[in-house]
Amino acid sequence: MILDIINKKRIGEELSYQELDTIFNGYLNGEVADYQMSSLLMAICINGMTDEEIYSLTKIFIDSGDVLDFSDIPGIKVDKHSTGGIGDKTTLVIAPIVASLEIPVVKMSGRGLGYTGGTIDKLESIPGFRIDLSDQEILKQVHDIGLVITGQTADLVPMDKAIYALRDVTATVSSIPLIASSIMSKKIASGADKIIIDIKVGNGALLQSYEDAEKLSELMMKIGKVYHREVRCIISDMNVPLGKCIGNSLEVLEAIDVLQGKEENNNFVKLCYELAAEMVSMGKEISKDEALTLVDDAIQSGKAYQKFLEMVEYQKGNVDKIKVSKNTIELKAKKSGTIQDINALELGKLSLSLGAGKIHKTDKIDYSVGIRLNKLVGDSVKKGDVLATLYVKNNVQGIKLNDIFMIR
Amino acid sequence: MILDIINKKRIGEELSYQELDTIFNGYLNGEVADYQMSSLLMAICINGMTDEEIYSLTKIFIDSGDVLDFSDIPGIKVDKHSTGGIGDKTTLVIAPIVASLEIPVVKMSGRGLGYTGGTIDKLESIPGFRIDLSDQEILKQVHDIGLVITGQTADLVPMDKAIYALRDVTATVSSIPLIASSIMSKKIASGADKIIIDIKVGNGALLQSYEDAEKLSELMMKIGKVYHREVRCIISDMNVPLGKCIGNSLEVLEAIDVLQGKEENNNFVKLCYELAAEMVSMGKEISKDEALTLVDDAIQSGKAYQKFLEMVEYQKGNVDKIKVSKNTIELKAKKSGTIQDINALELGKLSLSLGAGKIHKTDKIDYSVGIRLNKLVGDSVKKGDVLATLYVKNNVQGIKLNDIFMIR
Repeated sequence: MILDIINKKRIGEELSYQELDTIFNGYLNGEVADYQMSSLLMAICINGMTDEEIYSLTKIFIDSGDVLDFSDIPGIKVDKHSTGGIGDKTTLVIAPIVASLEIPVVKMSGRGLGYTGGTIDKLESIPGFRIDLSDQEILKQVHDIGLVITGQTADLVPMDKAIYALRDVTATVSSIPLIASSIMSKKIASGADKIIIDIKVGNGALLQSYEDAEKLSELMMKIGKVYHREVRCIISDMNVPLGKCIGNSLEVLEAIDVLQGKEENNNFVKLCYELAAEMVSMGKEISKDEALTLVDDAIQSGKAYQKFLEMVEYQKGNVDKIKVSKNTIELKAKKSGTIQDINALELGKLSLSLGAGKIHKTDKIDYSVGIRLNKLVGDSVKKGDVLATLYVKNNVQGIKLNDIFMIR
Repeated sequence: MILDIINKKRIGEELSYQELDTIFNGYLNGEVADYQMSSLLMAICINGMTDEEIYSLTKIFIDSGDVLDFSDIPGIKVDKHSTGGIGDKTTLVIAPIVASLEIPVVKMSGRGLGYTGGTIDKLESIPGFRIDLSDQEILKQVHDIGLVITGQTADLVPMDKAIYALRDVTATVSSIPLIASSIMSKKIASGADKIIIDIKVGNGALLQSYEDAEKLSELMMKIGKVYHREVRCIISDMNVPLGKCIGNSLEVLEAIDVLQGKEENNNFVKLCYELAAEMVSMGKEISKDEALTLVDDAIQSGKAYQKFLEMVEYQKGNVDKIKVSKNTIELKAKKSGTIQDINALELGKLSLSLGAGKIHKTDKIDYSVGIRLNKLVGDSVKKGDVLATLYVKNNVQGIKLNDIFMIR
């Protein structure tokens, strides 16, 4: 029976809801072996899935765990997801902006596994910050201050956790149908009314081509329709890193600078405005231009930063105690010219080698290390100018500096 | 590293010898997990392999274990392989024919896992027959009487055993490159100089289409060239069963009838002549027509049957003690007409349900059960005629008789 299902996908035929249910829930129950599921996942990666199959799989994922219900809280709940990239700390900026405009935000974020920390790792670099709130605490906090960023609770889409762990070790991550059902099932189970998704494309991202990003975008909007959730997607570049900082404490400090209006208008600031405006437009049902004005006002007036501090305090964190390593290494320009490119992938690898990310679940992140870019793409530099500052551990060794900056 | 290799095959790129070696030997060493190998096997099933990849894989398979050397025995050693089918007992007939014509035959055969027993199971239905000969015993026997049929020794292509077991439970059996390297690595490691392969096509076989059989045939001949082994393939029909009997003891008795020249010229007898003539043609380097005359003479003169008895005696078996169940059920025609078709697959399933085959390795075969067809395709029958006799266990129950005979 299980073999018939795998065979069907091997030869490119469509699986029914019943067949998908049998094999995926069989896997969760331990009746289907790892090696059978990975064989099916590879067949899905290569042969794809029809829309019907994707809707079925999304439903099976959602039904595998709890579904949160925030309908008691007034207002439209808007959630945001990013497919992840180097230097992506947008959640830390946009969640406070949106919440300061009286749209309730409950954001469940993940940890990073790969080049850099995830949002939860970044927040943990704020000493004392609690990321393991209970359902009760979440409800109380969103009621009191309208903003929560916390770790994903254990019972949300357990199927996704199991399948993702297997995909990660069987070279079956790069499948648009699997990515779409993974993201959408989590967002729907988290109780969001409307969802904005930031799809990253480039050498530092999961997806390498704009075409794939468009397919993923269309697919997620279709799934949203099935579940009566408005879904908007933006596709953003991940060939160059986002903003100036990579590394957990450094990224929190950079987010604070943006919230205080201190940062110039770089690619990260632009993306924050863009995403925040989309969320406000969805949450208040106004045009994006009107939303953009509100977003700018939230920053200029200090309301957004105030909301951020309110959340940190509520979750027992202390921004004054954020630590950045005092050991630094300066990376200098070997020639004069203009910076044509900064390689996001190489920066990610460097950040990992410094200790800012982790490869295995049991690795420990060093929150205080990272990279601050002093020059961005388009800047003119002279030979000897400091391009970047590396914040390193005491006992740093074996750092590999590949070609990160392309100067011409 | 392992993930990079799987990914490469996922996107349809060619793997190098080094990459294939790393992942396949890694699997045999336990460094690569089942779920990673099955993911790769599925990618191979769908995306295929280049000729170079197939040669590499065959070499890796062969190098995983012992390679037998029969060069001390004079004459050209010709081996035969069949991809397997319902009622296929050709080895029992052709090996004695060929050996009786002074071409040494060392045939290592397998057990069946599926609808019917394999050659080794069939031989075990001869009480006393030894199928676990040591390398020493094999050499002595082939020297003394020129004919041995025995089980495969443990150290021959262990990689194939490991990979086949995984393919069997992950729906990755139907891959022409994987089938080709599996068969050819075993035949080359068995020390054959020349190889004839009987590729079965039809509902009772591994391959369903003639096109796939042709592809497999070409591929195996190419692999043979790389190893300087002459390979000939014949493609034979497996939509109808081979001969009259299915079931272990029954098939041995049928083989004896053919060796004694008692059988009329049905599809099984024709195939025996064809395969034996190919082997004799290769072994004596004569034309197929000349070989056909020798084969016919070997049967008519009784030399072939004499050689069979010599082998059975040498291997301690006693043909007089072969047992067939005394409990029989007759399957009668429900209408008059001509037999248009006998469904090999349904007969196979019936034979399995009678106890003649096994699904799990630990199942026990009942050698005495099986099916004897009294009518073959093309025969005219009257309503009430006995179409087949089922030889069943004492406590037989729940036999399902699907539409085996199509009469019009």
